[in-house]
Parts: sequence; C-alpha cells; structure tokens
Amino acid sequence: MSGISNTNKPLEPEDTLNGAGRYDPNFTNHVISSIGPATDPRLRKVMTSLIKHVHDFAREVDLTVDEWMAGVDMINRAGQMSTDRRNEGQLLCDVIGLESLVDEITFKAAADAKDAVTQSAILGPFFRHDAPLRSMGDSISFDTPKDAEVAYMHGVVYDVVTKKPVDGAEIDIWQASTNGLYEQQDPDQQEHNLRGKFRTEKDGSYGFYCIRPTPYPVPDDGPAGELLKKLDRHPFRPAHIHLIIFDAESKYLDNDSVFAVKDSLVVKFEPRQGDEKAALELKYDILLGPTE
Amino acid sequence: MSGISNTNKPLEPEDTLNGAGRYDPNFTNHVISSIGPATDPRLRKVMTSLIKHVHDFAREVDLTVDEWMAGVDMINRAGQMSTDRRNEGQLLCDVIGLESLVDEITFKAAADAKDAVTQSAILGPFFRHDAPLRSMGDSISFDTPKDAEVAYMHGVVYDVVTKKPVDGAEIDIWQASTNGLYEQQDPDQQEHNLRGKFRTEKDGSYGFYCIRPTPYPVPDDGPAGELLKKLDRHPFRPAHIHLIIFDAESKYLDNDSVFAVKDSLVVKFEPRQGDEKAALELKYDILLGPTE
Repeated sequence: MSGISNTNKPLEPEDTLNGAGRYDPNFTNHVISSIGPATDPRLRKVMTSLIKHVHDFAREVDLTVDEWMAGVDMINRAGQMSTDRRNEGQLLCDVIGLESLVDEITFKAAADAKDAVTQSAILGPFFRHDAPLRSMGDSISFDTPKDAEVAYMHGVVYDVVTKKPVDGAEIDIWQASTNGLYEQQDPDQQEHNLRGKFRTEKDGSYGFYCIRPTPYPVPDDGPAGELLKKLDRHPFRPAHIHLIIFDAESKYLDNDSVFAVKDSLVVKFEPRQGDEKAALELKYDILLGPTE
Repeated sequence: MSGISNTNKPLEPEDTLNGAGRYDPNFTNHVISSIGPATDPRLRKVMTSLIKHVHDFAREVDLTVDEWMAGVDMINRAGQMSTDRRNEGQLLCDVIGLESLVDEITFKAAADAKDAVTQSAILGPFFRHDAPLRSMGDSISFDTPKDAEVAYMHGVVYDVVTKKPVDGAEIDIWQASTNGLYEQQDPDQQEHNLRGKFRTEKDGSYGFYCIRPTPYPVPDDGPAGELLKKLDRHPFRPAHIHLIIFDAESKYLDNDSVFAVKDSLVVKFEPRQGDEKAALELKYDILLGPTE
C-alpha cells in the first residue's frame, strides 16, 4: 500500500482507469515547470511531489468542481475555527492519518541518524508550550473527578548513547480528564490541570501523580467531526497520556481515530501498594536521543 | 505526466526511491479500512484515493513534522483570511493548478454527456451571485479609469443541440479594472462596477460596453502569495473577461499564475467604427449546452 507514482514510464492500460488518461497529459508538467529557478531545492521537491499527487488524485476519481469546492469550504471553515487553543486544520490531517505518518517518517529519520530511542507519537492539538514546571512527586491533577483512578507514574530517563541516567531532563506531560476534555477545552478545570513539566533527579528518575487516562472523542463539532461522521467512523481515541503512552486495557487501541497507536507505546497500569494517594502505578523508563 | 499509482502491483525497486518503502506498509490500508460501511460510495471512492495519494506524497518526499505543520499553518491562515468577498483556500488551489484541473474534468464529463459546448474556465474567487440584471447595450463600466480602452462586446448565444439562437439566455460577466482590482476589492469602485447580468434578445443576441481587460496579479498578501513568492513565480493572470474570454494580445497567456488559459478561449479585440462610446469591438458567439 505504499506504491508511488512513476511518471517516467509510459501509461499502461490499467493506468488509464477512471478516465485519468483522458485529460491533458501536459497539464501537470506545465504547472510544475512554473516553479522558478530561485526556489529552495527542498521546497521544489516537496511541491513537485504534492502537485503531482494532488493532480493524480483529481484525475483518478474524476473530481468535479462541486466536490472540490466542498473541500475548499471544509478547509476554510477549519481555519476559521482554529485559535491558539484549537487547531482544526491539524485535526483534519489527523483524521486521514497524516500526522501519524509524518511522525513515523520524522522518527525514522532521527532513529537512523542516532540510535534506537523511545518511539514518538503525534503531538496532537492540545499541547501547550507554557505548562508550569512542577516538583518531583507532585500531582498534575487539581480538579480530580470522582470517576478518576489516581495513578503514580515514574521511571528513569536514560541517554541512549551513553546508557547513563540523565540528570535534569525535562519531561512534558498532558492528559485529558475523565470527561474527555483537556483543561483548555473545559471551563470547569483550572488552568494547566492535568498538565505539567518535570525535571529528572540526579539518578535520572522522575515521578508524579496523574489519573488513569480514559478514551475520549476528538472534538467533533467542526469539519473534522463532519468528515468522521460522513466516513461512518467513531471519533474516539484510546486512553493515553501525552508523553505519550497508551493503556494496554483501553478500548480503541486497534482503531484509534487518529491512527497514533504503536505497540511499543502500549503500557500496563499495575496496582500500587502502600500509597493512600494512588491505587495504580505505572513504571515507564525513557530512552532519550541526543539533541542535534 | 498523468500516471496514477497502482497499489495492486508489488513494489519494484524504483518505487522505493526516497525511502518510501521504509515505512509501515500496512499503515495506509489501516487508515482506509477505518471508513465505515454506511459511507456514501462516492465519498468512499474520493477519500480512499485522497488518503492514498496524500500518504504516497508524504512518503515520497520523507515529509517531516515541521514541514507538515508549516502546511497546516498555511491552510489555517488561508481559512482565517477568507470571507464572503475573498476565498484564499480557493486561491491556494488555483496556484497549484487544481481549480483549472477540476474545471477540465467537469467540462469533459459534461461534454461527453452532451455535445461540444463553448469551453469553460475556472470561476475564480471574485464571482458574485448577486450581480444586477442590466439592459441590452448598457455599459458595465461606471468608474471608467483614464487608462482604460472601452470595448463593445457582442455576439449570439446558440443552443448546441438545436443549433438555434437562444431567447432570454442569462449571461453573467465580471472583470477587473485597469488597476487589477475587482470592485469588491477596491473602495474607489462603485458596487457592482464592471459586473452584470444580461438576457439575450429573441434572436439570441447580446451586447454591452465593457473595458478591454488588462493583466493583473492575484492577491499576494496571504498564504497563496507567500507560496508564489517561495516558488519564484509571478502572480499575474493574462487579461481576461469572466464569461470567460482571453485577449490574444495579452502578456502571461503562456504562464497564467492559475493555469486557466485554453486556446479556444483566446480572442482578438478589433477596432470599432462609428461608435463614440467604444474604440474596440469584440464579437463572441456562445454555444450553450442543455441544462440537466
């Protein structure tokens, strides 16, 4: 399922299915050749491929003006709905798996250049750069709902090259509450609830209290939600903590609405003994790659 | 240049160029198979092809998270800039030739179903549905600038099936002024300047005064303009009247910034004798296809 167009070969009969061969065979080259000589080489490569694939898509399905305009309208409405706190354009991409795919591509490039680090997953639209730095052992849950299970999450951050624990590594964590909402979506949660940064100790260890995550739907009141409904798909993501770690007992692990689950990121919450503040425990060590 | 992906064939060595074969070969099928059984068959076909081509594009160029986010940001800003009077999402599509391509596809489908009608071209972002109905022989130019050449445009509308003139056919015309601006972009032009609807006479004839069109740049203060600059491309469109008709003497006929020129739409303005209101004349007959 990862065949790519080879435009240097002559058209074969099966390539002309759906009328793709009926259209002006020079049009796409005409558009691509308009790119001027002063263009950045990487941008030229990206745009050449994008134009080729978008045109091939339109020809393959005989896309009509009305269908294209419906797509333009969807994209414009996504932009109009986007704010500092909500990125609907990103969510549209997530629904067709694009964020998860570019995450895989970017991670592979980083892994090839370095060593095998802890696998990445998509950032998603609810990350905030301004999460507060909290102290070792603190809780990130300030408005803990009654149906939440409190868990203590801890582990050690290792340098993937030296294999030694990392002192002072910063970990950024965010998770939705049991109602499926992140704090910036929910007026009933205090600012930066279920969100925070931690620095590892000298021995590389980190630890904090959080809640066991629950599955939640992505926001479905915009174009991305409309698309999911029209595609007869549910909007749910499996339970996860953004670091990012998936709960092995969660529903939706095999049909995440944004396709971000990876086997190596699925974890088990265990019962925690002797801690009145949390009934569950999650141990998760992290292999940190070197920065550029 | 219109090869399409054939995903049923096994990957050949050249298909794995650029690392496309290094990524999870099941991911795209996983995303496509999430489309539910209640999905409209046409939407399923369109989205399956779109997902396949967008994923192939990302793999082909090893698209990174940062590059993808720059694209999301561009799309969101295009939506935020769009209003009833400006459609920046549409303009972004125009710049990569997509509107012109879906126009070709839609026109071919209509032509196959009926007969050879006058060729269509893209609607563009400056069409308004509420143009006023004007009387035969009226002018659409109310704030005629000093550098404008007034022209009388006229012709006959024929039914492509019966070959007979069409009585009462509605013609919608709009054009930019010599400063390159449509009236809705220009506070110095009166409402509906250089825009109007006409109905043909019993003999199918129509006629009105307009100005000879001049080349103009598409709006370049948004994401579409940024993209044109980054691609080292000029923003100019050849001189045209939206009906749509191109002036054979215009610059940019062979490198329209939105790729909408078709040979059959290029026309010649001739000197007009004995009319103090216009120095030029354009005769243009129209073959009208039957409505559905």
